[in-house]
Amino acid sequence: MRAFVTGAAGFIGSNLVDRLLAEGESVVGWDNFSTGQERFLAKARRQPNFTMIRGDNLDLPALKAAMAGCDFVFHLAASADVRFGLDHPRRDLEQNTIATHNVLEAMRANRIERIAFSSTGSIYGESTVFPTPEDAPMPVQTSLYGASKVACEGLISAYCEGYGGEAYLFRFVSILGERYTHGHVYDFYRQLRVQPDRLRVLGDGTQRKSYLHVHDCIDAILRVVRARTAPAAPHRTAIYNLGTDSWCAVSDSARWIAAALGLNPRLDYAGGIRGWAGDSPFIYLATDRIRATGWKPQLTIEQAVLRSVHWLRDNEWVFDCRT
Amino acid sequence: MRAFVTGAAGFIGSNLVDRLLAEGESVVGWDNFSTGQERFLAKARRQPNFTMIRGDNLDLPALKAAMAGCDFVFHLAASADVRFGLDHPRRDLEQNTIATHNVLEAMRANRIERIAFSSTGSIYGESTVFPTPEDAPMPVQTSLYGASKVACEGLISAYCEGYGGEAYLFRFVSILGERYTHGHVYDFYRQLRVQPDRLRVLGDGTQRKSYLHVHDCIDAILRVVRARTAPAAPHRTAIYNLGTDSWCAVSDSARWIAAALGLNPRLDYAGGIRGWAGDSPFIYLATDRIRATGWKPQLTIEQAVLRSVHWLRDNEWVFDCRT
Repeated sequence: MRAFVTGAAGFIGSNLVDRLLAEGESVVGWDNFSTGQERFLAKARRQPNFTMIRGDNLDLPALKAAMAGCDFVFHLAASADVRFGLDHPRRDLEQNTIATHNVLEAMRANRIERIAFSSTGSIYGESTVFPTPEDAPMPVQTSLYGASKVACEGLISAYCEGYGGEAYLFRFVSILGERYTHGHVYDFYRQLRVQPDRLRVLGDGTQRKSYLHVHDCIDAILRVVRARTAPAAPHRTAIYNLGTDSWCAVSDSARWIAAALGLNPRLDYAGGIRGWAGDSPFIYLATDRIRATGWKPQLTIEQAVLRSVHWLRDNEWVFDCRT
Repeated sequence: MRAFVTGAAGFIGSNLVDRLLAEGESVVGWDNFSTGQERFLAKARRQPNFTMIRGDNLDLPALKAAMAGCDFVFHLAASADVRFGLDHPRRDLEQNTIATHNVLEAMRANRIERIAFSSTGSIYGESTVFPTPEDAPMPVQTSLYGASKVACEGLISAYCEGYGGEAYLFRFVSILGERYTHGHVYDFYRQLRVQPDRLRVLGDGTQRKSYLHVHDCIDAILRVVRARTAPAAPHRTAIYNLGTDSWCAVSDSARWIAAALGLNPRLDYAGGIRGWAGDSPFIYLATDRIRATGWKPQLTIEQAVLRSVHWLRDNEWVFDCRT
C-alpha cells in the first residue's frame, strides 16, 4: 500500500501515519497545518518511506499532484469543530464538503479507487434509536458539521457508484487519546489549569456521550480496509459505526478528569439538556457490524479519558500553540 | 406572503409563480435562465405584484439584495439532471449544494425564516423499502444528484436548528405536466419526432418509476406551507414525500406516449436493469404523511404523462431552444 493521508498532522491522522509506517507501508502525508501540529510528525519524519506535503484540499491542482503514485486514500482532514459551526457557517461547507469533492476528483485524476473516510455519529442528529445502527431511520441534521459529513458520505458513495471504486465510511464517536487537542477533555483540562477549584460544564451534565481511544479507532479502520470487505457492485460503500458499547455522562467524565489531576472542583452547569445548539444529548452507536469483523476495543471510555488527560499533562505545550 | 422563488423561470418554478400570483401573493422571481425559459413567465410578467430578477445563486451579494423584503423562500433552482451528473461532477455541488448554502446565507442576512425546498426521491438511493417512507433506513447515495440534495436537506435543517426558522422539505418523484422540458417523456417525444417508427429505451424497460403532475405537486406544497405544520423546536424541519400511490414501468409509459402521438414504434431496449449508472430501478414513495393533510393527487400517472405529451405537442419550440 502507498497510502495518501489527508490531515496527516492532525490527532487521528498522525496516529494513523505512525501506525502505517510501523507496519511497513509507504505514506504520503498531506496537511494544511491549520490545526495539525508539526510535532506530531516528529517520529514519522525519521522514516524513509514517509513523505510530507503541505497543502490545502481546496487547492485541487496541488492535491492532484501530491496524490500521484498512491493507491489508497485515508481522508481524515476536516473541520472537526461541531460546537462552533454556527460562528462560521461556510467553514464546514468548504473544509469538509468541497474539500471532499476535491479529494475525490484528485483520486479520479490519479485513478485511485479506494478511500477510507472519517465520518461521524453526529450525522444521526438526535437519533430516536439507541444504540444507533448504521441503517437508522433517515435523520434530520441538527449541526452544520453533521450536515457536511452527510454531504461527504453522499459524494463518496456516489463517486464509487458512478466511476468505480471502493469506499469505507467510518462513523466515529468522539475519539480520545494521545495527541488529542480538541473536545471536552481538552476544554476541562484547560479550565482547570487556570482555575483548579471550579469547572464550567456546558448543559446540565446529563448529556450522555460515547468515546473511543484513537488506537482502537485505527485498529478498526485497518482491519476493515485490509480485509477488503467492501460490498460488491453496484454499491461499493461499506459503512461502520466505530465506538464502545457504552457511554458516560459528561458529569462522570468531569469527575474522572478532576480526580486524575488530584482536584475536586465545584462543577458549574450552564444548564439545558444540550451543550450548544445542535449538540446531541445522547450519542451511543451500535457497533455490531464492526464487532462482527472480530474487532473489539481494548480500552474503556474511562481509560480513554484518562489516557487523554495523561497525554495533555505531558504535553501542555498544546494549550499554547493551538490555533 | 411576499415570496422569493428561485428557479422562477423553470418548469415547476414558473407554475408555482403563476399559482401564487393567481392567489394574490406578491412574488419576486429569481433565475439565471440556464434552463429557465422567458416564455414561461409571459403570464406572470403581466401581473403588477410580480418582479423578476435575473441572477445566479452563486452570486451571493446579488442574491442577498434580491431577497430584500421577502418573507418566504421557495428554493426550486437546481441542476435537476440526475442522468448526466457524471459528465460534469462539479455541477451538482455548485448548483445545488453551494447554491443552497448561499440561499440560506441570503435568508439569514434578510432575516427570512421560512423555506420550502424541492428535494427528491433520489435521495433514497436504491431503497429496500417500498413504498419508501420519509424515515426509511439511511441509504447509500448512488447519484451525484441525490448526494447533492441530501447535502442541501442537511444544510437547511442545520440552519433552522442553529439559527431559527422553519423548513419544509419536499421529496419529489419525477414531476410531469405543462412546461415540462426534461426527462423521459421529453426524450421519447424528441426521438419520435425524428424517427417515428423506432424508440430507444434506456435499460430493459422494466424500471418502475413514479410520477406526479406539477399542479398536484404545487397543491401539496402550498397546503403544507399555509397550514404551518412544521414541527416545533428544536427540529423545525417538516419532510414530505410527494408522489402518487402507484408507479408505472418505463415500457408502459413509452406505449402511452407513442399511442398519444398515433404511433406504434418498435421499442429498442438498451438493456440492464438501470437506465444509467446511479439510476434507481424502482422509485415508489410512501405518501401517507402528505395525504394525512387532506391532500390527494387529482391526476393519475398516465394522465400526467399524457398532459406532458399534449403540452410538448403544442410547444415544440422547446426542442429547439433547450440549452
